[in-house]
Amino acid sequence: MTKAELKKRIDIAAGRKVADTVIKNAKVVDVFNGVIIKGDIAFSDDYIAGVGQYSGEVTYDAKGCYAAPGFIDSHIHIESSCVTPEEIGRLLVPYGTTTIVADPHELVNIKGMDGMTYMLNAAEKTALDIKYMLPSCVPATPFEHAGGFIGVEEIKEALKDKRILGLAEFMDYPGVINAKSFALDRLMAACEAGVPIDGHSPQVFDNALNAYAIGGILTDHECTTVEEMKQRIACGMYVLMRQGSACHDLEKLLAGVTQENSHRCLLCSDDRQPKTIFEKGHLDEHLRICISKGIDPIIAIRMATINAAECFGMNDRGAISPGRRADIVLLEDLSQFKAAQVFIKGELVADAGKYLLPVSRQDINIKPSMRISFCVKDFSINKLKLSLKSNKVHTIGLKPDSVITEKGIAQVQLSDDGDFVYDKNVDIVKLAVIERHQNTGNVAVALLQGYGIKAGAVALSIAHDSHNIIATGTTDLDIAFAIETLIAQGGGIVIVKDGSVLETMPLPVGGIMSDQSGEWVDGKLTALHKIAHNELGINNKIEPIMTLCFMSLPVIPELKLTDKGLFDVTKFDFISVEAE
Amino acid sequence: MTKAELKKRIDIAAGRKVADTVIKNAKVVDVFNGVIIKGDIAFSDDYIAGVGQYSGEVTYDAKGCYAAPGFIDSHIHIESSCVTPEEIGRLLVPYGTTTIVADPHELVNIKGMDGMTYMLNAAEKTALDIKYMLPSCVPATPFEHAGGFIGVEEIKEALKDKRILGLAEFMDYPGVINAKSFALDRLMAACEAGVPIDGHSPQVFDNALNAYAIGGILTDHECTTVEEMKQRIACGMYVLMRQGSACHDLEKLLAGVTQENSHRCLLCSDDRQPKTIFEKGHLDEHLRICISKGIDPIIAIRMATINAAECFGMNDRGAISPGRRADIVLLEDLSQFKAAQVFIKGELVADAGKYLLPVSRQDINIKPSMRISFCVKDFSINKLKLSLKSNKVHTIGLKPDSVITEKGIAQVQLSDDGDFVYDKNVDIVKLAVIERHQNTGNVAVALLQGYGIKAGAVALSIAHDSHNIIATGTTDLDIAFAIETLIAQGGGIVIVKDGSVLETMPLPVGGIMSDQSGEWVDGKLTALHKIAHNELGINNKIEPIMTLCFMSLPVIPELKLTDKGLFDVTKFDFISVEAE
Repeated sequence: MTKAELKKRIDIAAGRKVADTVIKNAKVVDVFNGVIIKGDIAFSDDYIAGVGQYSGEVTYDAKGCYAAPGFIDSHIHIESSCVTPEEIGRLLVPYGTTTIVADPHELVNIKGMDGMTYMLNAAEKTALDIKYMLPSCVPATPFEHAGGFIGVEEIKEALKDKRILGLAEFMDYPGVINAKSFALDRLMAACEAGVPIDGHSPQVFDNALNAYAIGGILTDHECTTVEEMKQRIACGMYVLMRQGSACHDLEKLLAGVTQENSHRCLLCSDDRQPKTIFEKGHLDEHLRICISKGIDPIIAIRMATINAAECFGMNDRGAISPGRRADIVLLEDLSQFKAAQVFIKGELVADAGKYLLPVSRQDINIKPSMRISFCVKDFSINKLKLSLKSNKVHTIGLKPDSVITEKGIAQVQLSDDGDFVYDKNVDIVKLAVIERHQNTGNVAVALLQGYGIKAGAVALSIAHDSHNIIATGTTDLDIAFAIETLIAQGGGIVIVKDGSVLETMPLPVGGIMSDQSGEWVDGKLTALHKIAHNELGINNKIEPIMTLCFMSLPVIPELKLTDKGLFDVTKFDFISVEAE
Repeated sequence: MTKAELKKRIDIAAGRKVADTVIKNAKVVDVFNGVIIKGDIAFSDDYIAGVGQYSGEVTYDAKGCYAAPGFIDSHIHIESSCVTPEEIGRLLVPYGTTTIVADPHELVNIKGMDGMTYMLNAAEKTALDIKYMLPSCVPATPFEHAGGFIGVEEIKEALKDKRILGLAEFMDYPGVINAKSFALDRLMAACEAGVPIDGHSPQVFDNALNAYAIGGILTDHECTTVEEMKQRIACGMYVLMRQGSACHDLEKLLAGVTQENSHRCLLCSDDRQPKTIFEKGHLDEHLRICISKGIDPIIAIRMATINAAECFGMNDRGAISPGRRADIVLLEDLSQFKAAQVFIKGELVADAGKYLLPVSRQDINIKPSMRISFCVKDFSINKLKLSLKSNKVHTIGLKPDSVITEKGIAQVQLSDDGDFVYDKNVDIVKLAVIERHQNTGNVAVALLQGYGIKAGAVALSIAHDSHNIIATGTTDLDIAFAIETLIAQGGGIVIVKDGSVLETMPLPVGGIMSDQSGEWVDGKLTALHKIAHNELGINNKIEPIMTLCFMSLPVIPELKLTDKGLFDVTKFDFISVEAE
């Protein structure tokens, strides 16, 4: 802000100078007093000059709508929407979202700090204000090969960038609680930079939670029970109540929200696929759920606005008051929260559900390129062979609607040389993870139970958190064919059957994001789901794509497969496929 | 914080290591959830490790007391207590106060940045954590001579000091609202440093208030009505509800506090004389008043703790939660709020109303010396003469219990040369202000009505905000004698009658603060009041000393006297003593 800008703001606020823009005829939500007030909202350039009696160069008639501060999603992974930052802006803004706090953990695990830079630059090309948290745990664990590495020096350097608000979810919560040197160095870096650290501490309680909080962890979005929530709030943490595509925690947590602790409660998506956005919107869905559970509408709006601003030190937004960003959503009512118009930095950016600005995109080919480049050494069908010494094996047991697996034991048929033989009467198939970042040549194979696949194969370049290739199928031929097709098409998702490609979805941005629209992503995913269930016979109760993505995540129990082998999360060590 | 300290904190919080100190058997106030919880409070050095099950090297038994975060006075002028920072710590801590946000506006008007440095250094010598706001308006106005000058460069430099939280009350609110260059430069300096600015905007409303708020003003402690309060909160400002020795606004404002807006409400003293402290305590009085007006005890405690911490960005205190300063007050109940014990940075510092630490003092004689040095050029009794062209005069009319004066008109007796002649039947006397900082030789004389003085004279070196000498009396002889005695004794307060000194109170620190104890100050002020009323006949309804101090403050209506002359605050200009 220059002195002249400050003078202009004061002149407009005082009413000596005509405002750049005025919104008239709105019921203004005063999040501080918790009341609705009347008045014209005056803008001085990008900022709110005040609510009062004003005239403007440009005037909008709110037609009696409620004017609320633009919504803030306090935690989201853009990559989970399979679209780029420019596109997520187009998708979310029409629902009233004006700021998101994004954690680019997925792309940074693939591309390192180059991925962070790309996400920052792409964010500049949308009206949505995308603030980032810097991924804190890259690689997520030492039990896998990732493409990126973020060390303490990288963290210190990156935290100088004001577009980065703090350190993203500290998934290695045992590292914090046990005061491991690795964790301490990262916590110190955030502390010295004076920035917040997001948490991730499911089912951590009591003294262990105190230890996590004292490390400087400010938030948690992994609460699923009221008891977890209350303990975190008592520790001075903020609870980010999640309602995403995969996880639906909000409704349960609202039972723990009170007038008094509501100031420490925020709303977040964590992940939000295009389908969910098109069907349910974004934070407007969260707000509707709040109302349905009896939360006062202004308290609900606070959780979507000022509370998030306060939590992350974004003092320039979250309220319709002098000096804050002119990020405003006009709502038809405070029950459905349908956004009639959305303003960002004083500009009308969405009207009746339509994003009004042209979408330009950050070029993914300029160096350092974000286009996926496979570093897969010497892959061949032979690497899919198992050489088992026993037919009693461990299986990764799927459960519907969960990313937690069961450590199962089964007896399977073996070929003469000890390889697994698929039996169409038994729901057990091979699962393979192929390292794709470092040319290690690593291919790990294990057995998956409960997926229901009866023919063909599926291969993905999305596989949390290191995003190696993950593939499964009934025959080595089809699995290998799916993997080869995936590599040839430059990443994404491939479904094959009997040597034919049934459907593909290229995800050229790092192998995890499309360069197409949200509508295209939704269409492709819908087609893939249909084929997976109808042509491959995958269990209808299992979401065929996202479920597979999580089979390689070695921080969620009970049994997972990384490129280094079969990992027992409970033991926190690798085990053999043979059960004895 | 070093890595080893962080590790120690986490180890203690997790329960792997014995805590340095544990408070057991306390009912812990959880300001975040707004509830009382049970648990041991563990300390790791100066910080709270957590509330849970802990054992400690040292254990205190809270004996069932409530444990609340230490109280924070969000706005106070230490100088108004007539004691130094070391002593204010001794006085306030036993009442549960562990942090004050002080504005050393008075001393800095006298001594400039040297005064600021002294206040910072003196603060290091008490357990009370004294945070400072940097005086923003020095001199307070261009209508008087002060001893100090704080320009934009001084502000920029000073705001680098982390002990200075921000810019103190911006008294020149017309300067902000009218976007004067002087004000803009100072606002910009605070904005660029990213620090809060305290406000001072009595009776400013609507668009003018928006203009003030958009200047970056975060707080106001001058609200006296609920309407003022609600408008400021709607503007995103915090309201500091005042209960001091002079102003009692809290009770009235509590009518405007709601569950929802209470998070933006804080408690402050503004000024708190030793007598008030000894009779009523400190923020414990505020809390009792809150309870008497039906405020929930935990909401009241929030206003005295976490709300102030949040307002001023002091994220290291204000709650009993992991990682915050171990500043804790043990309270016998949540109605009287009597402090049984007080801990600061993990150390027991007050017990049963007694401050436990030795009081050492910053030497006021080391250079730059804080000892008062008068720069009064050529004062003589002749300078007290008025040379009036008319016997119809303006009078500064006193009103009981107010620092606002009335612009009166009276007919008075004149001598042959036009000088005012005192008439014992008329309650009008001479009031003189003698410049004492810059050797200007300025002496301004006007007429004071309603003080009731019937004999002798009073002279002070406390006179807001520039603290020149102010004196009044029935004869020039006694006024001159009082002034000469004041200069000879090195500042403070002098009462004389018929050429005899009746009582004195030296205030060697800048002429406004004693180097003695609060008890000594209280004793002296009590004696002075008694003599003023009994021997000089001053109106019993008028507080004789503090009332006089405010007769030179040209920002409070209606008529005031500075060293430059009689000032009409409404006209914002000087006027002559003659009324026509």
